[in-house]
Amino acid sequence: MRETLFSLGNGYLGLRGNFEEGAPVHHNGTFINGFYETWPILYGEEAYGFAKMGQTIVNVTDAKIIKLYVDDEPFYLPAADLQSFERVVDFRGGTLTREVLWKTPAGKLVSIKSTRLVSLEYRHLAAVAYEVTVLNARAPVVISSEMATPLADEDRAGDPRRAHGLRGQVLESQVHYAQEQRLMLSHTTINSRMALACATDHVITTECPYTFKIKCSRNAAKVLYNVDAQPGKPITITKYMAYHKSRTQPPEELCERAEWTLDRALEHGFEVLLASQREYLDDFWQRSDIQVIINPEHARHHNKEIQQWIRFNLFHLCQATARAENAGIPAKGLTGQGYEGHYFWDAEIYIMPFLIYTQPHIARNLLEHRYGMLDKARRRAAELNEQGALFPWRTINGEEASAYYAAGTAQYHINADIVHALKKYTEITGDEDFLNEMLVETARLWRDLGFYSERKKGQFCINGVTGPDEYNTVVNNNTFTNLMARENLWFAAHTIRKLREEKPEHFVELLDKTNLQPDEIEEWQAAADKMYIPYDQQTGIHPQDDSFLEKEVWDFEHTPPDKYPLLLHYHPLVIYRYRVVKQADIVLAMFLLGDKFSLEQKRRNFDFYDPLTTGDSSLSVGIQSILAFEVGHHQKAGEYARYAVLMDLYDVGGNVADGCHIASMGAVWMILVNGFAGMRDYNGRLSFHPQRLEVLQQLRFSLRVRGRVLEVDIREDQVTYILKEGEDLSLYHVGEEIRLTWKDPKAVRQIPNLKA
Amino acid sequence: MRETLFSLGNGYLGLRGNFEEGAPVHHNGTFINGFYETWPILYGEEAYGFAKMGQTIVNVTDAKIIKLYVDDEPFYLPAADLQSFERVVDFRGGTLTREVLWKTPAGKLVSIKSTRLVSLEYRHLAAVAYEVTVLNARAPVVISSEMATPLADEDRAGDPRRAHGLRGQVLESQVHYAQEQRLMLSHTTINSRMALACATDHVITTECPYTFKIKCSRNAAKVLYNVDAQPGKPITITKYMAYHKSRTQPPEELCERAEWTLDRALEHGFEVLLASQREYLDDFWQRSDIQVIINPEHARHHNKEIQQWIRFNLFHLCQATARAENAGIPAKGLTGQGYEGHYFWDAEIYIMPFLIYTQPHIARNLLEHRYGMLDKARRRAAELNEQGALFPWRTINGEEASAYYAAGTAQYHINADIVHALKKYTEITGDEDFLNEMLVETARLWRDLGFYSERKKGQFCINGVTGPDEYNTVVNNNTFTNLMARENLWFAAHTIRKLREEKPEHFVELLDKTNLQPDEIEEWQAAADKMYIPYDQQTGIHPQDDSFLEKEVWDFEHTPPDKYPLLLHYHPLVIYRYRVVKQADIVLAMFLLGDKFSLEQKRRNFDFYDPLTTGDSSLSVGIQSILAFEVGHHQKAGEYARYAVLMDLYDVGGNVADGCHIASMGAVWMILVNGFAGMRDYNGRLSFHPQRLEVLQQLRFSLRVRGRVLEVDIREDQVTYILKEGEDLSLYHVGEEIRLTWKDPKAVRQIPNLKA
Repeated sequence: MRETLFSLGNGYLGLRGNFEEGAPVHHNGTFINGFYETWPILYGEEAYGFAKMGQTIVNVTDAKIIKLYVDDEPFYLPAADLQSFERVVDFRGGTLTREVLWKTPAGKLVSIKSTRLVSLEYRHLAAVAYEVTVLNARAPVVISSEMATPLADEDRAGDPRRAHGLRGQVLESQVHYAQEQRLMLSHTTINSRMALACATDHVITTECPYTFKIKCSRNAAKVLYNVDAQPGKPITITKYMAYHKSRTQPPEELCERAEWTLDRALEHGFEVLLASQREYLDDFWQRSDIQVIINPEHARHHNKEIQQWIRFNLFHLCQATARAENAGIPAKGLTGQGYEGHYFWDAEIYIMPFLIYTQPHIARNLLEHRYGMLDKARRRAAELNEQGALFPWRTINGEEASAYYAAGTAQYHINADIVHALKKYTEITGDEDFLNEMLVETARLWRDLGFYSERKKGQFCINGVTGPDEYNTVVNNNTFTNLMARENLWFAAHTIRKLREEKPEHFVELLDKTNLQPDEIEEWQAAADKMYIPYDQQTGIHPQDDSFLEKEVWDFEHTPPDKYPLLLHYHPLVIYRYRVVKQADIVLAMFLLGDKFSLEQKRRNFDFYDPLTTGDSSLSVGIQSILAFEVGHHQKAGEYARYAVLMDLYDVGGNVADGCHIASMGAVWMILVNGFAGMRDYNGRLSFHPQRLEVLQQLRFSLRVRGRVLEVDIREDQVTYILKEGEDLSLYHVGEEIRLTWKDPKAVRQIPNLKA
Repeated sequence: MRETLFSLGNGYLGLRGNFEEGAPVHHNGTFINGFYETWPILYGEEAYGFAKMGQTIVNVTDAKIIKLYVDDEPFYLPAADLQSFERVVDFRGGTLTREVLWKTPAGKLVSIKSTRLVSLEYRHLAAVAYEVTVLNARAPVVISSEMATPLADEDRAGDPRRAHGLRGQVLESQVHYAQEQRLMLSHTTINSRMALACATDHVITTECPYTFKIKCSRNAAKVLYNVDAQPGKPITITKYMAYHKSRTQPPEELCERAEWTLDRALEHGFEVLLASQREYLDDFWQRSDIQVIINPEHARHHNKEIQQWIRFNLFHLCQATARAENAGIPAKGLTGQGYEGHYFWDAEIYIMPFLIYTQPHIARNLLEHRYGMLDKARRRAAELNEQGALFPWRTINGEEASAYYAAGTAQYHINADIVHALKKYTEITGDEDFLNEMLVETARLWRDLGFYSERKKGQFCINGVTGPDEYNTVVNNNTFTNLMARENLWFAAHTIRKLREEKPEHFVELLDKTNLQPDEIEEWQAAADKMYIPYDQQTGIHPQDDSFLEKEVWDFEHTPPDKYPLLLHYHPLVIYRYRVVKQADIVLAMFLLGDKFSLEQKRRNFDFYDPLTTGDSSLSVGIQSILAFEVGHHQKAGEYARYAVLMDLYDVGGNVADGCHIASMGAVWMILVNGFAGMRDYNGRLSFHPQRLEVLQQLRFSLRVRGRVLEVDIREDQVTYILKEGEDLSLYHVGEEIRLTWKDPKAVRQIPNLKA
């Protein structure tokens, strides 16, 4: 678990928090975003259109190993006599440091200090400074700086959230060489034919006499430093690690790139890297930090602790997204191999809001990356007998990799989720005219997928899909899906019409790309206008789908805690038969499309669904918290918020060992901004409905909106809105419009008491 | 395809109709019913309760190979200059004979005659007499009689009806030896640890001088006859083949058994075997034949042809079932490896009626075999969170082997299908008190699976199941399932109550075995009485399930013929989304439980469902034909009948290469008896409603009912019922009760004109 929490990464490269010495190890891991191997998915019974190839992120060459021997005794942590031990992730410095004082069996005191970083500025680069000092004696010290390429991936079966289909050898050795203190290993994947080069270089700094020698074979290489250590004289090995990968370039080319990266790193030196980390993170925190002060009377925990929890989540968001260029955000970021390094809807729905409001250029990159999948999505739609484009439920390379369609391909809502993020991005950034091709193709899919049902009085119905809730699969008229599809259709119709009127030349270009026909826009509009939204008069709630209310309620009373998550203890047929919900579904719709529900409606739905929701998905509690805030269940909102904030730190889901739940971390940001501060932005209209704070005394964050920077500062029953950058900005405070300007950038308002 | 049609078998052992010479070959096959290998089912994404082990019938040692060389030139059929060629399956003699006249490259004329049989009396035994005569010259003739064990099964992927998961080596060599002209190979399966012995022995009869030698290795053995052939003098090799298998006994034991079998065969000689085949089949045809005379004015085909078609179907039914002891009936019998040699519901619903009315002792064996699976079915129910027992959808060893639950495990109706067959068996044979334990455990499952739904006014609903129609899966309240479950519950309640009153000691025994509680029977009764049966007032039809009418109708108009069967051309999600039916579902219910529908109701349902039914399953047309007869669509009934009769002979489904459709062959019997003759037997009440014949001039068959033998002879507009054996029998002719007695065994009645 700690290996996950102490992971470092930059969205391109991720190193799990294993010790330098390489042992003990649970799951080691070095990941490059989008560097994957494929494997044929075997089905006991196959059917037409099932995903054919699995894709799994590869655990690549581990370059960070540094082994230490004093008097030829290995430093092995579990057996070592430790006088002191500390390990720190510095959220501001972007480093993982460790300080150990080791008493060797011979009674020598050895100080070992290491500082590791994955550069946020130079995304191919990581580095570690490893300093050894024998404090009280002279001793022969051997430091072995190593690289090792895992030949076969660990075999994993059982838990579907962790399992993958890689078997046997994945990486095939290509060029390898060593020169001075520089080591180079390059590999290709056997099936997907991707290439990787991993190189390290070293600087040793010490007053002690030393020699070194190098060894290099196909899958392992090392520099061995043999030092005659003098008492109190530090020996420092600075190791630079470069990773380059490519789908098209040969390993030789990548080796060259890795050499440049190392040349540059050596030229700069470690201190410069540290400074650049700090600089990057200063900017990150200035954009993204959320500051809280805790009311000591109410809180069970210290202020510093809670603030740290929040920053832990934000820091990992940074590490997962910072340099994810030409790539998506894997469900676990680059902190573990869980979910095979796949991109789901997580980025669009859970991480995108954070990015749009704090680092919109990264949000834009992610949307561009989705756009890069459009052609494959077109082909997938055709394979599924539909017009337009259907994005894959889980993928790295743009092809569907879900081997279980009921909770995979059937989640057609992925299309609308992407468009939702696109819409939000354009509304909040003002970046218009962006990726209209995606709108056309997704709208086409919805139009073709649904139909006007006589049995539903001519309304537009969408059958045979799975919504976000994976405990009710392949249903008719999933309310979430229908609502989101409607937004997709409306937005496409509106945007393309506007384009036609305002930018005829862009419109013509779009026609060329999509072969859009004159009546299509009207068809989208009509389908959206007539979209069937399930509603049950009798109970006054929105059923999750057509058959949800026909199901027997799950016997929660007789389900012991160790039977959760249900998916690990009951056959899907059993789960699907009952009225039980894995994760926020309608409740998520009420957040994403909250302007389509009255408050009273939200309350009724929330009260109906909340007791049915197991929260077996980490995507659930965050959204439940936000809605609980909105409908006035403050205590519950607080509890769910606590679960979300501690999801990984306290291993709430029991599977942090497989990686951090990055989407849940995105939800932490949303809980604070959308939950506590009650921010909403339907159709770009920015509004706040802050909660009166109780456990918190103060909550402060800033948002970027169409180039402006807005700071929101909530203290108990008062909120201050400050326009920090930009000329003017309109927002709504509890329904009241406020206009902040360059001249008058600040507004202070009371927070109404909801109970009043 | 011919390899399938010329298959021989006895229900225990099956030999595909490959040529003796072993080439050319498409799919060779030698199968022993229930001799299977297991393999771990891999899932791209696994879930709790998914079937873990696949089971596949093994293609075992091929013992029938006899290669021929004249002047050291091999006799290779495709290249040979054939002066004449004939191959005949004799339905009365139970043999496959071939007569060939071959002109060798050197101009020698060679007559080759072979007669092959799989003994119906000695189920472990097969034999072939192979006679070679060089007619016009002297020539060295080598006859190599061989055995060969396939080391790896052919790799099969793609079509889910054919694919299986065996990879690599399946059989591991055990004892092997040769002595005189006797060869012995024994093997075990690697995973399932079943043992097999296959032995051959030979008799050579000729006036020509000869020598022989033997070779025997682990997986192959042969006797090589070197004959100095004289013109016109036949050389006959009679080869006996014995197969023994066991799940518990070691190969050595089986080798001994095989030796006994061969000893006995040698003692009897080939002629005795031929006579015993004839004797067995005389009895079979006397019990089971259906004779037709065709009206030459109406028919497109000759009388003899149509009669042969019918007998082809009946003959294969015989071969599939005759000696299936301690085993089930695989979907393809023993004619091919399609569906992996698995037992489905086919035996109970499609083959059992034929057996009950013609050879009830075989029907009894099959039901006993199901009973042998009860403990595993109990465990499977527990795994699926249910009480009672759940029989596997597809299996050999009693464990669920369906790797695709939506069209597998979800077919809970298998439970009711088995009980339906059990009920029918006891009603028609008078064999009461049979397997009550099955009734208790199946009824328990239904009671626990369903629930009283408030939304359905307190009626008993069964959610999340798949009916017979595999194009609508995991639905709520599949009408077929609910009706069949109701019958199951009612029958269980009725039978157990009666047992308690009439046979208290048996009842106590049952309590011991099942721990039956006092209120359970009332619960079954109540659930059955309150069973929800979907009915749509608006259209006046029974919807197939709760959501069937909510679906968009499949676009049949724009589906070209080469897109059928749909399952090979559309993703399941696409198929499931539409109103389209793979196979008779409601229509089957209207046959099995026809007394629960009025004629008018049947007509409405039939007319509604028939155009929606693709018949992509071979199980469909037979049932459609029967119902078409009943509701008066005679032309359609005839068309469907034709499809069913020719299913394999004309390869209607395009996959006869994988084996005969045994269930469809059972449906052929039903079409004639239940369709043309309109026989029904609800609750043991035997009734007939014959059709006036048009294409047929005469239809004659006999039935065994509670120890009596009834002959039914229909000629155009007149039917004669004759009690051939037994004291008395009541039956109903178009509603009129007729009592046949020993004194007055015959009744002649007019057939009313339905149109009148």
